[in-house]
Parts: sequence; C-alpha cells; structure tokens
Amino acid sequence: MKNSHSHGIIVAVLQVIFFVLFIIFAKYHPDADARQNPLVNGTKLENKLSKYHSNADSLDTSYETNWSHSKLYPMFQDVHVMIFIGFGFLMTFLKKYGFSSVGINFLVAATCLQWALLVNGFFHLHYNKIIIDINALLAADFTAAAVLISFGAVLGKTTPTQLIIMTLIEIPIFVINEVIGRQYLGAIDMGDSMFVHAFGAYFGLAVSFVLYREDHSTEKEGSSYRSDLFAMIGTVFLWLYWPSFNSGAAPGDDQHRAVINTYIALCSCTLTTFALSSLVDKEKKFNMVHIQNSTLAGGVAVGTAADLMIHPWGAVLIGMLAGTISVFGYAYLTPFLASRLRVHDTCGVHNLHGMPAVLAGIVGCVAAAFASEETYGPSLYEIFPNRAPAADTEDFERLQNILPDLEAGPGYSAGGQAGNQILALLITLVIAIIGGVITGFLLRVEIWGRLRTDDLYEDEKYWIIEEEEEEHHMSSVHTPMTSPADNGTSK
Amino acid sequence: MKNSHSHGIIVAVLQVIFFVLFIIFAKYHPDADARQNPLVNGTKLENKLSKYHSNADSLDTSYETNWSHSKLYPMFQDVHVMIFIGFGFLMTFLKKYGFSSVGINFLVAATCLQWALLVNGFFHLHYNKIIIDINALLAADFTAAAVLISFGAVLGKTTPTQLIIMTLIEIPIFVINEVIGRQYLGAIDMGDSMFVHAFGAYFGLAVSFVLYREDHSTEKEGSSYRSDLFAMIGTVFLWLYWPSFNSGAAPGDDQHRAVINTYIALCSCTLTTFALSSLVDKEKKFNMVHIQNSTLAGGVAVGTAADLMIHPWGAVLIGMLAGTISVFGYAYLTPFLASRLRVHDTCGVHNLHGMPAVLAGIVGCVAAAFASEETYGPSLYEIFPNRAPAADTEDFERLQNILPDLEAGPGYSAGGQAGNQILALLITLVIAIIGGVITGFLLRVEIWGRLRTDDLYEDEKYWIIEEEEEEHHMSSVHTPMTSPADNGTSK
Amino acid sequence: MKNSHSHGIIVAVLQVIFFVLFIIFAKYHPDADARQNPLVNGTKLENKLSKYHSNADSLDTSYETNWSHSKLYPMFQDVHVMIFIGFGFLMTFLKKYGFSSVGINFLVAATCLQWALLVNGFFHLHYNKIIIDINALLAADFTAAAVLISFGAVLGKTTPTQLIIMTLIEIPIFVINEVIGRQYLGAIDMGDSMFVHAFGAYFGLAVSFVLYREDHSTEKEGSSYRSDLFAMIGTVFLWLYWPSFNSGAAPGDDQHRAVINTYIALCSCTLTTFALSSLVDKEKKFNMVHIQNSTLAGGVAVGTAADLMIHPWGAVLIGMLAGTISVFGYAYLTPFLASRLRVHDTCGVHNLHGMPAVLAGIVGCVAAAFASEETYGPSLYEIFPNRAPAADTEDFERLQNILPDLEAGPGYSAGGQAGNQILALLITLVIAIIGGVITGFLLRVEIWGRLRTDDLYEDEKYWIIEEEEEEHHMSSVHTPMTSPADNGTSK
Repeated sequence: MKNSHSHGIIVAVLQVIFFVLFIIFAKYHPDADARQNPLVNGTKLENKLSKYHSNADSLDTSYETNWSHSKLYPMFQDVHVMIFIGFGFLMTFLKKYGFSSVGINFLVAATCLQWALLVNGFFHLHYNKIIIDINALLAADFTAAAVLISFGAVLGKTTPTQLIIMTLIEIPIFVINEVIGRQYLGAIDMGDSMFVHAFGAYFGLAVSFVLYREDHSTEKEGSSYRSDLFAMIGTVFLWLYWPSFNSGAAPGDDQHRAVINTYIALCSCTLTTFALSSLVDKEKKFNMVHIQNSTLAGGVAVGTAADLMIHPWGAVLIGMLAGTISVFGYAYLTPFLASRLRVHDTCGVHNLHGMPAVLAGIVGCVAAAFASEETYGPSLYEIFPNRAPAADTEDFERLQNILPDLEAGPGYSAGGQAGNQILALLITLVIAIIGGVITGFLLRVEIWGRLRTDDLYEDEKYWIIEEEEEEHHMSSVHTPMTSPADNGTSK
Repeated sequence: MKNSHSHGIIVAVLQVIFFVLFIIFAKYHPDADARQNPLVNGTKLENKLSKYHSNADSLDTSYETNWSHSKLYPMFQDVHVMIFIGFGFLMTFLKKYGFSSVGINFLVAATCLQWALLVNGFFHLHYNKIIIDINALLAADFTAAAVLISFGAVLGKTTPTQLIIMTLIEIPIFVINEVIGRQYLGAIDMGDSMFVHAFGAYFGLAVSFVLYREDHSTEKEGSSYRSDLFAMIGTVFLWLYWPSFNSGAAPGDDQHRAVINTYIALCSCTLTTFALSSLVDKEKKFNMVHIQNSTLAGGVAVGTAADLMIHPWGAVLIGMLAGTISVFGYAYLTPFLASRLRVHDTCGVHNLHGMPAVLAGIVGCVAAAFASEETYGPSLYEIFPNRAPAADTEDFERLQNILPDLEAGPGYSAGGQAGNQILALLITLVIAIIGGVITGFLLRVEIWGRLRTDDLYEDEKYWIIEEEEEEHHMSSVHTPMTSPADNGTSK
Repeated sequence: MKNSHSHGIIVAVLQVIFFVLFIIFAKYHPDADARQNPLVNGTKLENKLSKYHSNADSLDTSYETNWSHSKLYPMFQDVHVMIFIGFGFLMTFLKKYGFSSVGINFLVAATCLQWALLVNGFFHLHYNKIIIDINALLAADFTAAAVLISFGAVLGKTTPTQLIIMTLIEIPIFVINEVIGRQYLGAIDMGDSMFVHAFGAYFGLAVSFVLYREDHSTEKEGSSYRSDLFAMIGTVFLWLYWPSFNSGAAPGDDQHRAVINTYIALCSCTLTTFALSSLVDKEKKFNMVHIQNSTLAGGVAVGTAADLMIHPWGAVLIGMLAGTISVFGYAYLTPFLASRLRVHDTCGVHNLHGMPAVLAGIVGCVAAAFASEETYGPSLYEIFPNRAPAADTEDFERLQNILPDLEAGPGYSAGGQAGNQILALLITLVIAIIGGVITGFLLRVEIWGRLRTDDLYEDEKYWIIEEEEEEHHMSSVHTPMTSPADNGTSK
C-alpha cells in the first residue's frame, strides 16, 4: 500500500536528477546563444546567419545552422499540441479515468521531454555537451509520442510509478533503435511511423502482455456520452496537425509533399473508417471507438513515405488501406488478442499505431524500390543519402556538376535501399517487443506498486475527486446514507 | 428502413470513385515535385525557387510559384482547425446530437476536402491534370466551409446519406458560382463572405425549406449546460482563427490589413452581441445562443472588404452592425421564419452567416465605390485587377512606369467595380437558393432514407451509444426494468 | 436590482465610445497601408520592404518596419489562443460558473483588446494618431492577459458591470506602470512576468480584498469531475503556447532562447507540481487544482529572464522553484490569506501568477547582475540598451566597430541594471496594489450592482440556463413538482 503511493517522491527525485544532468551536460545551440549572434537586430535572420558565417574566425562555426527556427516553430507547436492535447484528450474516453488520461499524460509527456532531450543528446554529444535548439525540442516531442503510444496500451492498468519507470527505460531503447535504423541502415522514415508508432505500439503491447495475464474486464472500461466527446477533442487535433508531424522535419519541397500526402491520406482514411465502422455493425451504426482512432490510421500509414513521390493517388490508397485494417482490427483482432493471447490493449494502439505503422514500413519499402532518378531527379540522393554514388565514381562526378553540395554515399541500388527499409522495420519490431517484455517484468517488481482489479480504469485511487453531481443522484436513490452535504469535503 | 442504413456502402463506393479520379487526374504542383526541385537542401527556399526559375530550360516553368508554402502553412492550419474543431464543436450544442455534430461534421468535411480538390481542379485543369499544392488544400478547406454552413441549417434533420448527396451536389454549384463571380465579374471577396458564407447559408436554408415542410418541434432541439460548454470550444476557435480565414489568401500588406480589420471587427461585434443579447431578454440575461454565434458575425461581415482600406473605424462599425443584425435575427427573425415561412434553421445560419454575408457584400460594394488611386496608390490595380486600364491607353503607360508587372485590364470605374460587386452578391443568392431548392427535392427521394420525427436531433439512430450515466439515474427511477447490467453490451 | 442588470446598456455605450475614438485616432501602420506598399505582388515581402525604403522620398518612412508581420503572426495566434481558450477554459473549473468563465472572459477580453489598442496608442501617439499593426494587436493581447489574471482573483464574485469598470480602470494604470518600468527604468521583461503577471495578480487581489470583506464560503465554489476536465483544456493550451507568450516579441536568437528556456522551465515545473501535489496530500493523491495551475507557474517564473543566458539548467531550476512555491501556496498560503487576511482568491492567481512573477522579477535581477560582454558578446547592448555606453566614450567607439547600428545609452553597470530590475518589480507591486485598492472602492459604488451571497459562483443570475439533465434527475427524486415538461421554456 505504501509503495503504491511513493510516486511523489520518485518524481521529485527524478526531477532533481534531471537538474543535475542539465547542469553537467546541456548547452544552447549557437543559434540560441547570444555571444554567437552579435548582429541580431530583429530584421533579417537569414542575413544574420550569413554574417555569422562570414565572421567565422571569431565564432564557433562547427555546427550546422541551416534551419531557421522561426520557420520550424509553427510546425513544432502543432506537434506539441498533438502530444499534450491530442494524446491527452484522446484517452479521456474512459468514463472514470479522465483525470488520469489527460493528467498522467501531462506528467509522462513532461518527463519524456526532459529525458529525451538528455538521452537524444547523449547519443549525439558535441564536445561532451548536449546541444539544445528547436530541433532538439521537436525531437523530444517525437520521442514522447512513442512513450504515450505505449501508455495507451496499458492505460488504466498501471500505477503512476510504473509509468515513470517505463518512460525511463523506453526512451534509451527508442533512441538506440532509431540510431540503428537511420544511421546504420540508412532507412528513411519522415513521419517516424516505424521509429515512433510501430516501436511505441509493440513496446506497449509487450508491456501489457507481461503485466496483465489475468482477465480483468470491468464495466469501468467503457466510455460515456460526455467522455466520448472529450475524446473527440483529442482525435480532431491529432488529425488536423498530423501533416505537421509527418512533415515538420522535412526541407523545402519534401515538406510540401509530406503535407499534401498526409492531408489526402487522412481524408481517404476518414471516409473508409466511417464506411466500414457502419458496415461491420449489425445495426449499421457508427462506432465512436473507430471514429476516434481509425480515422487517424492514415496519418500513421503514410508517415514513412510521406515525403516520397507516392503521388496523390498513392496517398488516397494508403489512407483507404489504413482505415480498413484499423477498423477490422478493432472489430475482430482486438477481441481475439485479448481473449486468446491475453494481450489487453486499452486504447487499441495496435489498430491505430501498430498495424498501420507496419503498413507504413511496407509502403516505404515499396516506394524506395520504385524510386529512381527519372522520378526524383537529382533530389533522389538528398532524400536517400545512401543511394548517392561513392566518391571517385563516374556517376558521382556527373552528379556533382548538378549538385555541388552532394556528399558521396555507399551507392545503394533501389533494391538495396528497399531491403534496408524492411530490415529497419523488422529490427524495430524485435527491439520493441523484447524491450517491452523486459520492461514488463521490471514493472512487476513489487516496489512500484500494482493496481488491484477494483482500481483499474479509475481515477479515484490517485486523484482527489470531488464527488460528482451524477454520483449524487445515484447515491440519493440507491444509497441514501451518503448525503449531499458531504460534498466538497475532500477539497 | 434498410435504405436509411445504406450510408456505409455509399461512403465506401464514393471513396473508391475518388480514388479512381485521383489516379486519372491528380498531380503534384511543381513546388511539391522532387524532380522539379533539384537543389533543395533545407536552407533557403527562396533561393531554391529563384534557382528553379533560372534553370528554366530543363524544367517545367509554366506554373506560378509565387507563394512559399511555408509562409502559408500556419494560416492554412488555422483554417483547418476552424473547419474541424470550429464547425464540429460549435454544433455540439444540441444535447443529444453531439456525436453527430462533431462526427458527421468530420465525415462531411473529409468528403468535401477530397471532392473539392477534384472539382476545383476540374475547373482549372492544366494539361488535363489537377494540380495539387498548399493553395489547393486551402481552397478545399474554404469549399468545405460552405457545405458545413449548409449542414448547420439542416443539422439533426437529415440522414448521413442525404448529407453526402448534398455535399456532392453543392460543391460543383459552389465552384460555378465562384467562377462566375470572380472570373467573369471580377468581384473581389477576400474572406469569401459572399462565395462561402452567403452561398452556404442560403443553399442550406433552401434545402431545409424543401425538405421539412411540417412542424417538428421537439424538446430534443435544445442544449444542456455541458453541451453549451462544448459548443463554446467551437465558437472560440472560430473566433480566434477568423483573421487567418479572411487573410490567408492575401499577399503582403493586404494580408496584414485583413488581419487587423478582422480582429477589430470581431471585437466590436462581441461587445455588441453581449450588449444586445442582454437587452433583448426580458430578464436582461445573456443568451448562450447569441454568444456562441453572433459574436462571429463580425468576421463574416468584414470578410469581403477585409483587405480593403476600410480603416480601423470601418472595421469597428462593421462589427457593430453585424452583431446587431445577428442578435436581432435570432431574437425576432428566426422564430418568424420558422413559424410563418416554415424555414427551419437549426443552428441559425441565417443569423451567423446569411445576413452578415449580405452585409459583407454591401460593404464590399461601398468600399469598392470609394476606392481610388488617392487612397490605395497604384496597389489599387492589384487589388481590383478589373480597374487596371486597357493596354495602349495613356493611363496604362503612366502606371507601367510605376508598376512594371501590371497587367492591362478592362479599365472599370469605381462605380463599375461596385456594380459588379453587388451583381456577384445577387447572383450568389440566386444560384444558392435555386441550387438548394433543387437539391432539397433530390434529397426527398426515398432511396436516401428520411428521419422520422422521433429520430430528429438524436444520435441514437446512427451511433452506438453507451448508455449514459445520466440515463441510468433516470431509468433507475422511472424505468427500473432497464438494469445497469445492460450497459456496455453494444460495445 | 435594476442597476445590476444595466450591463447591457453599459457595454453598448462603451462600444459606441470605442467607435468614436477609433474614428478620431486610429490609423493603419504603413506596413498595412495599401498606398505605402505600391509594389506588393505576393512574392517577396522582404524585397517589398526594401524597395519601400528605397522609394523613401515619396513615402512616409518615419516608422520602423523591421518586423515582417508574417513571421510574427503564428506566435501572435498562439497568444490569442491563450487569452480566449486558455484563460477562458481554465476558469471553467467551477461547477456552476462555466458560462460566465468562458463567456465573461470572452466579453472582458474583447473589451480589453479594443481599449488596450486605444490606451497603448495614446501613450505612443504618432502625429496624434494611434498606429495599428500586428505588434499593436499582440500588445493588446498581452494587456488583456493582465486584466484576465485580475478577473481570476475575483471570479464569481462580481457583476458583469463591475468587471467592465475594472477593465476600464486597470488598463491605463497597467500602461503607466509598464512605461515607467520599461522606458524610464530600462527594465527588461521579455515574457512580461512583472508587467503582466505580477501587476494583474496583485491588482486583482487588492480589488478582491476591498470588495469582499465578509466570509462567503459556499458549496458552489467547487469543481465537478466534468468541469475539471473542461478546465484542463485551458491549462494545457496555456502550457503549450507559453513559449510563444514569452518569446513572441523577441528578435532572432533571443526568441530561440526564450522558446527553449520556457519549454524547459514548464517541463521541470510540471514534474515538481505533480510530485509536491502528491506529497502535500495526506493520502498522497494528486490535486487537480495544482495540476491545473501550478504546472504553469514555470512559464511565469522564467518570463522576465526568458531571453537571457540563464542556460538550460537555469530554466530547469526556475521551473522547480516555481512549482514548489505555487503548490505550497495553494496548500498553505491561500487558506491563510483567506481566513486571516480576508483576501479571497478564487482561482489562486497569487499562486499561479503573483508569487511566480515575483520570483521572475528576482531571477531577472540576478540574471542582469551576472550579464557581461563575456557571456553575451556585443549582443549585451542590444538586450540591455541601458548598458550601452554613452556617445563619445572610448568604449562606444570600440563597440561601433563591431555593431555599426548600436545606439548610445546611459552606460549602466551590471549592478545598475540589476537594481533597476528590482526597482521595476517593486514599483509594479506598489502601483498594482494601490490601483487595485482604489478600483475596489470604486467598484463598491452601488450603481454597478453587487452580488448577493446566493448568486456567488453561479451562472444563473446573468445567463439563460437550460435546466440541466442532471437537475432533472435530482428534481425527479427530490422535488417531483418540477416536471421535465418545463424544460426548454426559457429558450
């Protein structure tokens, strides 16, 4: 009992540790360093940067400063809204778990942001320092998304302490997997469908699988009319800002294309979801679970290839496929997983993130297999750096005439790139599942507390709850000894 | 009965048709085409574009690339929020129709976006292809707004199938009307008050007029305390982002002016609405219906002239007038229309969009009549292209010295432009009403289903509804045979 | 009784006065004036502006046009969301005061924006005209924040008329205080923690102190489960967009740094808040009041020094301190203030805005005391203009070689600047408290009405309320004479 309430101390200690790590390691990026920007006057950031480079002798120029923070900022903010409003409210669908959904989401996300700044930084140290700029903030938000997806799988079934521990373990594994995929395999994944969505979903499902072997179905694991409306706030903001998620890190025309592809895939996925949601119901009614979740699957499924030349029709097709597997997943696969495999998935992250992200990985592989200089022009070698020919080859010389800045690469073929794409997907799945299983066992240690069946999907154990008006009515009918006069005493 | 549940199949088939049309017609704009942007490196989009033009011989340069997508994107996202959060939640005021309000709004909007991309594209084909870029996405959002306004007039009174059919018919008529107004008449309408708001409102009212001739007042056509709070989410986001709606498509100082004018008009409209809402009530209380809707009328009314030199005081005045006609409309005109003319208007779109948009058209006409080179400088001919003098005139030569890029025009006088403004408004009203009437008759065809009076303003027919906690209480008192144990079985 | 319902007329008259003042004084900034921007063509705003300057002889060039409105606009919109959604929904936590919280917030904010445009303009007249551009709109939003913070202190305890009068008085005092602090003392306060948060909080507390001397605790001054969820919408949007609030007015790298510092401080404050919220509770439960408010204290506390070189660890530390004083404030100080000093603070603005803003002022003083050319480079003199050396000094000549645009200043030492920082804080507190006390006495004049104890924290007196479903149930049990058939008659 006592252990299950130690979360206050654990969070406090953790924050102090973060503080110490920030003292030792964190440093502003030169773009955000006053000493490095002597000629700022508010007018021309571009000019400022070029002057900055021309004064190179007196300044530290060992960093890339090729992205103006003010261009990235609006998309960063959109992603920020997705993390805190989107994920937070999406999970408020549970009728008695609203405080935890939006509140614990808030706590976990704020933990993620600090921890991800540190861990991402540790993997990209610069003279033993972690460099912080708007790109680092955005990367931290992406990392948080993976953890919050895992949170969705175990929603209502963990103590706050267990979630904090899960966060601390998941993020380093996440970063290792991403480094393997991107740096070693050269896999591309613009919208982070593999590295965030697939990873987060299968990690969370593995945790859930290990933690909850018994059946614990309860009437509280349902929604109410009002809680479903709150959840729609989350759904719609996620849906709206998904183009920013998939395109935020992309440059120039890649970004433009990623916005278009995501917008279109989400639209076609939405129609598909509504159609199938009605068709799979015996009374042909729409199911709020599908509308809240499957409409978003198109954004996941188009993520990996969002910036590729998949053409508008490709985006439509991906959205349709994503909506289809997601609704069918909710209708048929989730009950099967829960009853046969005992994998309980509170939010259905397997249908919203897991399967659509596998689809995304496959789409990315196919798109890479068909990518050619004919379609992409010389941009091919900027989008797939591994396809750039080796230095000293004839092909490299030819390209250098067109693209003076081109860096030499290993000269992968289209098939080679496609193979590495699928390899990155498989490695992600393996690392996520193994990582999740190990984490699940660690979370079973008694010290983190554990929820009794009565406390599942219920805010009451961890939140001071004003007695609800609704409860009043019920109690005034069924249990007259609880008088309304007791109301508010807990505050 | 069966027909009324065919919406799933209809939506599925429609999505497949969209897919085929995208295969045949849709194509990325060169700005979003990798092959056309060989020198992208993430640093300087502007430079990229200029290089793109200098490499003109090897590239397709038959498009205008004069708007950087990254500048437009934040305003596009604001409009996107208005469409899905703004309209969606604004309509959740009905106490038993929240799922449909935000959910069917979602379905209709996603249908609109795809259909509008196609239909807008068909009217501006380029070598038989529909060209998709961020401007096309934004235009699709604007088109969706018109349909969602019409949706507001018939809210709670149609089957999903009827709405889908209405969407399919309304959009081509919308585009035809806009082409007539903008291209043939040279009317300007920066915030689309005439082409979106007036069109959408009168189209919807005409549909409602034809569809519902009988009286069908019901207690369910009301709000509850919580549903009114949900609706305020929609109201406030619409209010906040309206400056983006009115200025998104404007260049340079026009955009700046449109932001200022819209901001000011909305503020003055809000005070006017609160004042009159209280004054028209016999107990001097504020009415949530007015606060949710009439506060927005200023954004509509200033739309047509948002980028014109109406001066800050002009914006204040327009906001005051708009708030006044909107509150009076709700207080006196809506009941009259409903009882005498049998035009039933669920959301009061006539007061929020209809009359304020007519005001906007008149304001646009007046502002055009007073527009002179003295006030606007040579910008006059960029804002009103039809006022540019004919080639080979003395006036044209004089202007070319100042504005080398100026294109010759028909040389309208201020009065001529003002006349065409009012003509565009009248044509919009006529086309909207005739189009709406015809659409209304088409929607009465039995095949699309029809709601019985019991199903009006009620989610239950088309949505799987968890039995509400509130319902529990009621049933536990009034109808004890419905036990709480039944709860959740539908999920 | 009659007087308490005169708010409709007062608001109407006020709007007419605003209209007259706009006619006489308001004018577009040249950046938003068509005549001043002859070469606009939508492509290159930067180019346009430079051409504008080169055509200087024919145009009015007495204004600075050094900030492109399109760069500022996204951050302006974020702040706009904070004012209307953030503050509006944050205050909906009261269970029976939701309409007033979001609705009266809307009215007061729209009043503030117009009045602040005018009053700010009166203090910076240009040839007897108030110049309106995007910067003026943003400044008006900041000013509104101060008034809405004061509103939080008196929430549920005033008539609408009293709030309008408070707004009219508070804004001029606010502007005078800011002019003293910024212009005369040269104090810097990037995120307006002193000038907005400290001022607004202590002004509001002083008003509350004078207005409400008697005890008026009531069961209605509590939240419900659903109202707390609505409040979280406000909290999370405030939290998300706070970096825009603290950095919106900053140029270049200052803005980048302010975004980073605010983001980090908010994260560390959030963990601290959760930890302490649990630790101060005897059952170790989280308290929604803390989560809704104290998580935001980090944004306030880092505000003054947001753009300074406080380093990432400094931001972490500030967030931790802010969360600590805020939670302890709610847990121990607020009850003490209410019972002993009879300062009643409905939203706890003292804990969210007051004390954290005092901390911000102290942090700003410390950061200024340590600011040196070694850390800041020559940027020091752009961030702290008062530290620029006097003209004709040797130091000034040295600097001019590096910074040709540098303007001479009074040549303050680090200690001198630090002293002025703390002086600005103290003056702000004094002016706010005296201003608030005087305003409080003015609000006690009978003519503005006054709430009876029964009407506190209750929408019913000023809003038409649909009978709630919840009420039905209760009445159907307890007071069967109120039949459901009465429902909706008020609409």
